[in-house]
Amino acid sequence: MAEIENQRQGSEEDQVITPWEVAAKEGGKIDYDKLIDKFGCQRLDETLVRRVERLTSLPAHVFLRRGVFFAHRDFNEILDVYERGEKFYLYTGRGPSSEALHLGHLIPFMFTKYLQDAFKVPLVIQLTDDEKCMWKNLSVEESQRLARENAKDIIACGFDITRTFIFSDFDFVGGEFYKNMVRVAKCVTFNKVVGIFGFTNEDHIGKISFPPVQAVPSFPTSFPHLFSGKDNLRCLIPCAIDQDPYFRMTRDVAPRIGYQKPALIESSFFPALQGETGKMNASDPTSAIYVTDSAKEIKNKVNKYAFSGGRDTIELHRKYGADLEVDIPIKYLGFFLEDDVELEHTRKEYGAGRMLTGEVKKRLIEVLSALVERHRKARDAVTDEMVDVFMARRPLPHMFD
Amino acid sequence: MAEIENQRQGSEEDQVITPWEVAAKEGGKIDYDKLIDKFGCQRLDETLVRRVERLTSLPAHVFLRRGVFFAHRDFNEILDVYERGEKFYLYTGRGPSSEALHLGHLIPFMFTKYLQDAFKVPLVIQLTDDEKCMWKNLSVEESQRLARENAKDIIACGFDITRTFIFSDFDFVGGEFYKNMVRVAKCVTFNKVVGIFGFTNEDHIGKISFPPVQAVPSFPTSFPHLFSGKDNLRCLIPCAIDQDPYFRMTRDVAPRIGYQKPALIESSFFPALQGETGKMNASDPTSAIYVTDSAKEIKNKVNKYAFSGGRDTIELHRKYGADLEVDIPIKYLGFFLEDDVELEHTRKEYGAGRMLTGEVKKRLIEVLSALVERHRKARDAVTDEMVDVFMARRPLPHMFD
Repeated sequence: MAEIENQRQGSEEDQVITPWEVAAKEGGKIDYDKLIDKFGCQRLDETLVRRVERLTSLPAHVFLRRGVFFAHRDFNEILDVYERGEKFYLYTGRGPSSEALHLGHLIPFMFTKYLQDAFKVPLVIQLTDDEKCMWKNLSVEESQRLARENAKDIIACGFDITRTFIFSDFDFVGGEFYKNMVRVAKCVTFNKVVGIFGFTNEDHIGKISFPPVQAVPSFPTSFPHLFSGKDNLRCLIPCAIDQDPYFRMTRDVAPRIGYQKPALIESSFFPALQGETGKMNASDPTSAIYVTDSAKEIKNKVNKYAFSGGRDTIELHRKYGADLEVDIPIKYLGFFLEDDVELEHTRKEYGAGRMLTGEVKKRLIEVLSALVERHRKARDAVTDEMVDVFMARRPLPHMFD
Repeated sequence: MAEIENQRQGSEEDQVITPWEVAAKEGGKIDYDKLIDKFGCQRLDETLVRRVERLTSLPAHVFLRRGVFFAHRDFNEILDVYERGEKFYLYTGRGPSSEALHLGHLIPFMFTKYLQDAFKVPLVIQLTDDEKCMWKNLSVEESQRLARENAKDIIACGFDITRTFIFSDFDFVGGEFYKNMVRVAKCVTFNKVVGIFGFTNEDHIGKISFPPVQAVPSFPTSFPHLFSGKDNLRCLIPCAIDQDPYFRMTRDVAPRIGYQKPALIESSFFPALQGETGKMNASDPTSAIYVTDSAKEIKNKVNKYAFSGGRDTIELHRKYGADLEVDIPIKYLGFFLEDDVELEHTRKEYGAGRMLTGEVKKRLIEVLSALVERHRKARDAVTDEMVDVFMARRPLPHMFD
């Protein structure tokens, strides 16, 4: 706690990572090793990735084998559970603050879809419309509208309708879910949320009340229509690492109220087009590729804004090669180019200066245009009726098949 | 705000009145005039009482004509509404922290029943089982059980089943009610609840989250199954004045979220048997008469513990008369002896020393035994099915007849 608080208070050396703020020190890169130490989570190493492959009989997802999901808490225990033939469930979510998602928003959902398919487990997706209403000063109605619009993008990622429950907090808070909120809230002092989240005395009490809302989907008893009688079902949360503070709090409280701690599998941030200094900024449309961008917009954004590690002149580039550590096109390809051989070849050629930035950007534009076009088609196929079904409080027929 | 905060910090001169703490200065009497000034509410004067009688064509309730309900906020506006032939609704509640209610607990319910009958209006009764779970460290299950037990005592006060909705927060929080909680929470900072309620940084966030829960039954939109389409319906809250902080906060927020301010009608505290230094203490069973006390227990408690204003010897008593200002039996008769003529006669004779404490206590024992016996019978007649109906989320058939 004390360490986190110091981190918030921000000595020159420190980076600030909270669910609402991601800032590397002096505009540099996020130090993820340092973050793992500070947060107290574990590195997701090669051994664990191999174990996932062995257990699921599938190649590990690109995001696993390339270290996008790089940290965890008790993920090994979830694998133990699975190996014993027992069940668990997945929980992820989104704060619906904008109309259109950008590529960074898709990452946890793409990965969660892989986990759902690989482990054949049920999934709950929380849309924190209450949070966005309070933080972004949106009206209740507008937050709910955005939640539903975002649900369509989420569904377009291909989740199994027989295993997935999507809910809006404004719709779903109540009953067993609210009882768990109260159980959690009783265990957390104001001082503690100040230490974890950096709230101040001038913050409104809606913010101070919110952490239990994001905490309780970690407990199966919050979903009696899904997990009745399965009070000890383990929960695995795929999320970006900025959400860790919520679940550190949740894991601290869980045993005190007789519940299992949720396990976590945590990703690094998807970098902004302008360079890897943190998360993308939703209020700057040139910093990100949106799932609604046209092929022309994607081409323009990549060519104009994607920070290049290429050298200033062709001569220098041929001589020194691209600086892959800062090059955004190569990083984006690392997320979205499935073919390991092609990626390695590109890295090698580009890093040696035999390939130019323009060629790498051209390939990235192809990959992203195809991804966005695929998403657009999938989203167009999402009907209002499908949204209604995903968001209905219903039993999930093939939950554990 | 600042004044209230000072009051909490408690200079020697000050009394402390919050929903959880009632303390007169140096064990003396509560200064209600000072309280009206501090809280900024209005005195409920004779003119207003006469107006109630004129509008309802009924004699004013004992609690009105004897000043038990002594303060208000905008009660005159509610009477304007009623006079124009428009409607309003009543909201009161209880924190279910104990198995059996004492007589002080009955006062707002007896008075609310009179208001419901006199004005023929719908009523919502909030059982704050979530609050008691958090403040008293009861389990969720125990708080809910107590809420249901208390509901039986409340129903026994004679509320009209066709006009009354009783709800437990653990059951009912959610949907439109939760949306209103978020709307309220956005408008109230931590500093503000510190000023109003005296929370500290060591308090858990459940306490800090709670004020919006008690605030939002003031808004008809929190009850779509009752008041759909009646978003501007006025609300009148009968309560003891220690609840005023919640509704000061609510009235401050209401116009900022486009809602009507609730009106209030506020009672003084029912004194403990040992004397009028504040509310009764639920953890000291000799300080109060419970609705579960037997006739023998009532007789014993009144004779043994009821603080007497009578003099030390019969001679002195005959000479000086009883001190009615501190005499508990005469105060209790003021609450529960309906007959104005008899009460006035008793006050006169006792005050003049012609009547002895023993005689007044004897009369009080008769009055209380009859009241408690009547309540016991009424409670025995409350079936589980009746509780289910009162607590069902249903339309109220004769709501505005």
